Amino acid sequence: MSITVYRKSHFNAAHRLYRKDWDDTKNQSVFGKCNNPNFHGHNYELEVGITGEINPETGFLIDIEKLKKIIKEEVEDYLDHKNLNIDIPEFKNLNPTMENISVLIWNKLRNRLEEYYQISVKLYETPRNFVVYTG
Amino acid sequence: MSITVYRKSHFNAAHRLYRKDWDDTKNQSVFGKCNNPNFHGHNYELEVGITGEINPETGFLIDIEKLKKIIKEEVEDYLDHKNLNIDIPEFKNLNPTMENISVLIWNKLRNRLEEYYQISVKLYETPRNFVVYTG
Amino acid sequence: MSITVYRKSHFNAAHRLYRKDWDDTKNQSVFGKCNNPNFHGHNYELEVGITGEINPETGFLIDIEKLKKIIKEEVEDYLDHKNLNIDIPEFKNLNPTMENISVLIWNKLRNRLEEYYQISVKLYETPRNFVVYTG
Amino acid sequence: MSITVYRKSHFNAAHRLYRKDWDDTKNQSVFGKCNNPNFHGHNYELEVGITGEINPETGFLIDIEKLKKIIKEEVEDYLDHKNLNIDIPEFKNLNPTMENISVLIWNKLRNRLEEYYQISVKLYETPRNFVVYTG
Amino acid sequence: MSITVYRKSHFNAAHRLYRKDWDDTKNQSVFGKCNNPNFHGHNYELEVGITGEINPETGFLIDIEKLKKIIKEEVEDYLDHKNLNIDIPEFKNLNPTMENISVLIWNKLRNRLEEYYQISVKLYETPRNFVVYTG
Amino acid sequence: MSITVYRKSHFNAAHRLYRKDWDDTKNQSVFGKCNNPNFHGHNYELEVGITGEINPETGFLIDIEKLKKIIKEEVEDYLDHKNLNIDIPEFKNLNPTMENISVLIWNKLRNRLEEYYQISVKLYETPRNFVVYTG
Repeated sequence: MSITVYRKSHFNAAHRLYRKDWDDTKNQSVFGKCNNPNFHGHNYELEVGITGEINPETGFLIDIEKLKKIIKEEVEDYLDHKNLNIDIPEFKNLNPTMENISVLIWNKLRNRLEEYYQISVKLYETPRNFVVYTG
Repeated sequence: MSITVYRKSHFNAAHRLYRKDWDDTKNQSVFGKCNNPNFHGHNYELEVGITGEINPETGFLIDIEKLKKIIKEEVEDYLDHKNLNIDIPEFKNLNPTMENISVLIWNKLRNRLEEYYQISVKLYETPRNFVVYTG
Repeated sequence: MSITVYRKSHFNAAHRLYRKDWDDTKNQSVFGKCNNPNFHGHNYELEVGITGEINPETGFLIDIEKLKKIIKEEVEDYLDHKNLNIDIPEFKNLNPTMENISVLIWNKLRNRLEEYYQISVKLYETPRNFVVYTG
Repeated sequence: MSITVYRKSHFNAAHRLYRKDWDDTKNQSVFGKCNNPNFHGHNYELEVGITGEINPETGFLIDIEKLKKIIKEEVEDYLDHKNLNIDIPEFKNLNPTMENISVLIWNKLRNRLEEYYQISVKLYETPRNFVVYTG
Repeated sequence: MSITVYRKSHFNAAHRLYRKDWDDTKNQSVFGKCNNPNFHGHNYELEVGITGEINPETGFLIDIEKLKKIIKEEVEDYLDHKNLNIDIPEFKNLNPTMENISVLIWNKLRNRLEEYYQISVKLYETPRNFVVYTG
Repeated sequence: MSITVYRKSHFNAAHRLYRKDWDDTKNQSVFGKCNNPNFHGHNYELEVGITGEINPETGFLIDIEKLKKIIKEEVEDYLDHKNLNIDIPEFKNLNPTMENISVLIWNKLRNRLEEYYQISVKLYETPRNFVVYTG
């Protein structure tokens, strides 16, 4: 009797999309206005999904207060009100696209959650652009 | 050519999370503020998904007016403006968590829909906490 | 240069609409399914608006972290996961309709905010039913 | 490391559900108020999902500006502010149900996107009725 | 102690914007793609606001079930699944713009509600375009 | 017969809240995490309201395509994907709070719209924090 529980969260951050080893013309051609050297930013909306079996004793798949706390520690405290390119070590040499941010979040949650849970990460960069990563 | 049709619905209900065979300290420790003995409540938002083949004669997977009627009879009439712990027999000895409510809804819809339809139930307990159950 | 700053918040509660001095028939006729003696409940969504002048030193009308804290203390801590009829003294002899709840919230915020701020309270009882009270 | 990128879009259109080879009584019985011979209409909300591997050079699964342009050319320019029954050749003899519209959109996008991308189409006909088609 | 109660509703309709006394070139220049002679359509979302005093006996400004019934009879039954230009007499010689539709709805509600209530009508033609009319 | 027409828009930007003439301790105390020297960012959602009389010839208060174009030129082209502190001259010595951004937008629209229109600006900095400025 497999079920998935979801918890929504959010964080705000600045970023820039570019490659240091490309010149301005190529960066502009590939990343467009996202290449602004002074950065721009987003309200990222996050939906974390956890799949597993319902615990018959409590009726819970997972204690959602515990899940909320893990998301706060792993995602909000780490990414909220940050400059992704400058403040986050994983993005020093990796573009902070919504694809790469969702993989980072998934990996950080994977380290904190028991192996028998499957994890999905849905990340909205804008209300019209979003991504789903399931490992 | 498999396709899924979704219909949204909603109901409002009161509930309390606790186990009669646990003492207050344990209930409080596991269920926190959801253990209020006087109950609290939610606006539950429901998305029912039905998967199958498009009927080439009508262009419908399912007559959505029929689906709407089944959801009204099985879910809204049964759960809306109710106290889940007191008014709903299935929750006399089962915690009305969003996980268990979604399983109840799925089972009730399964009894009313033809076997060749797959069913999914997405249930929002709050705008930030929700669950998906697919049987 | 008057401006209004809004902060959204939410709480979940159970309630019942009825008058103790009316018999069942009259309560049922006036309050319908909201008269369930075992209670039902809602996710209340709240938007608090504060009107005044921008502080030229900070660019803020009000420190929104301070406003968030006042809303938490006056509204969330007081009403969240409660039975409005039983747990909230103001509703012992007053019907906890969305109208009366919004007046209660407005009065509690009025006591905590400086006189030169105007206050508005928008309260959603369901996604389709809501109320605005401005004192 | 498979991932799915989504892009939202929308278009407005008129339509009527009926079969030319059925009489009025049967059309009314099967399609109800959707059978109005003078047409009615909807704001269709669309979510296109593209699944594949992240390009390690850019951090993108797909250039979302390119995806946005394809959706504009294949869907918005073709369906927006149109009468689906009269203006769209594919629906001359096929009912423009949300099921059939989603299949049309999927086929048009399939022709424009590289084979190694999987495609999903989610189409809202109203805020409460929607469909998902994945080919 | 004035307060405003809101009720949301919706209807779907087809329409065309044009003037019979203008030629095609002028209609196209002023109304653009809304001038499609075969019509297009929208999901109209409606928020009706009623302002007055709380009834101290019930705690209601207005019985929202009564308001819901009036909106159904005056707006939904009259406009839902209709072609505004053809099926609605008021728009035989008046453009069914969102401005004019909101005035029509306000007038129809004004006829049904007691004089001591003020009325506001908010009408979404699309998620990005909407209008407010207060008489 | 006064009416208000609204148009939604959005832009993404980076910013930092601080005063150059304050030391780090004071900036941190007043602006908290918004004081990150490397910037953070938001998806700003904008609702522009225009009030006036309906033009009886067209049924429009204002040609919404014209309004959309003015918002694009004055707001989106000016603020989207920008660093508000560095790229926008008005914020060189003024804190880019949501209050001050809304006043800037209002002033820029005021210069482009005829005097007989009243203007309101609603600006969401996050889904929970927003501001309304009406001049």
